[in-house]
Amino acid sequence: MDKLERLQQQMSFLVEIDKLKTILRQSYVVHEHRRENDAEHTWHIALMAALLSEYADEELDLLRTVRMLLVHDLVEIDAGDTFAYDVTGHQDKLEREEKAAKRLFSILPEDQQKEYYELWKEYEDRQTPEARYALVMDRLQPMLQNVYTKGASWRKHGVTADQVIHRASVMKDASVQLHDFALRLIENAVKEGILLPGTESELT
Amino acid sequence: MDKLERLQQQMSFLVEIDKLKTILRQSYVVHEHRRENDAEHTWHIALMAALLSEYADEELDLLRTVRMLLVHDLVEIDAGDTFAYDVTGHQDKLEREEKAAKRLFSILPEDQQKEYYELWKEYEDRQTPEARYALVMDRLQPMLQNVYTKGASWRKHGVTADQVIHRASVMKDASVQLHDFALRLIENAVKEGILLPGTESELT
Repeated sequence: MDKLERLQQQMSFLVEIDKLKTILRQSYVVHEHRRENDAEHTWHIALMAALLSEYADEELDLLRTVRMLLVHDLVEIDAGDTFAYDVTGHQDKLEREEKAAKRLFSILPEDQQKEYYELWKEYEDRQTPEARYALVMDRLQPMLQNVYTKGASWRKHGVTADQVIHRASVMKDASVQLHDFALRLIENAVKEGILLPGTESELT
Repeated sequence: MDKLERLQQQMSFLVEIDKLKTILRQSYVVHEHRRENDAEHTWHIALMAALLSEYADEELDLLRTVRMLLVHDLVEIDAGDTFAYDVTGHQDKLEREEKAAKRLFSILPEDQQKEYYELWKEYEDRQTPEARYALVMDRLQPMLQNVYTKGASWRKHGVTADQVIHRASVMKDASVQLHDFALRLIENAVKEGILLPGTESELT
């Protein structure tokens, strides 16, 4: 394959993934009343990962973490955003996302196809310090968005504190301090009346 | 300063910079007819920097490059986006952005204040391989957006090929191959009638 062909494959991928900007999440941006999209979310947590790396409990390769985050939601271009508390949507999430990863990364030259698929898979599998710390960012950011939009997405979907606590629990596998901080956010949110107290539903 | 106070300063910064999602650029996203915002643009070029790093002419610290890109447009939260071909807007751009950088990074704990201000300044000064390569990404991405939206922003503003060539010229300081690719994009765009041929105005 000549160089130009390689570059054109990479450019095709870069244009295809522009679609990430059209995938809406359930979270709201803080300074406008609208839902945020996956590209905005991804920028935010990639920067967050660098800014908060001092709180990672294990040593990690920050570049790998950030690269992982930059691609972690690409699969939603095909598979859509599955809301954190959507039980039905989670049943076939893995299968849909695996298929999406294969299609998207196949646009790249072969070596990068493999490299980026593995990076995404590493995030999904949560078996490395980088993947576990990346997940902390993905869990913390929507909590911040909720707290600073008076629980916009929590209230809309009737989410309860127990559900949020359960969802945040994986954070402690990579950062005890950020997990503690998250619990404090949840406690305050309940006090302020922007998050329902109450028991987690059996389905979550 | 206790740990919680430090963490709260970092969180305040992360919430403040959510405003990047509200700063509109002149470029259009490819798969929807709307202008893209700085957060979306930043995600795109951070990933692009990783994906295309093989084309950097000098060895570089990719993590530093990506971190630089993740913060490079934050100053536009206060200073606004200055369109590439807006002459008047560019006259006081530096001053407005310097002031913005000081305000924004001052929200962070002191050590990070200095670290992030320096990272941003390094990008602006273009004196390191990382900064020069980061700039290539910032120049290439809007060209891709234009090419794949049939010149949406070029046509709207009556931009000419010479202007785009001039703006792309800094790319060759960090990547001859990507600069060549950009020239090829411009040539094709003129052929396809989505970019005006013609002479660069004296003002640019």
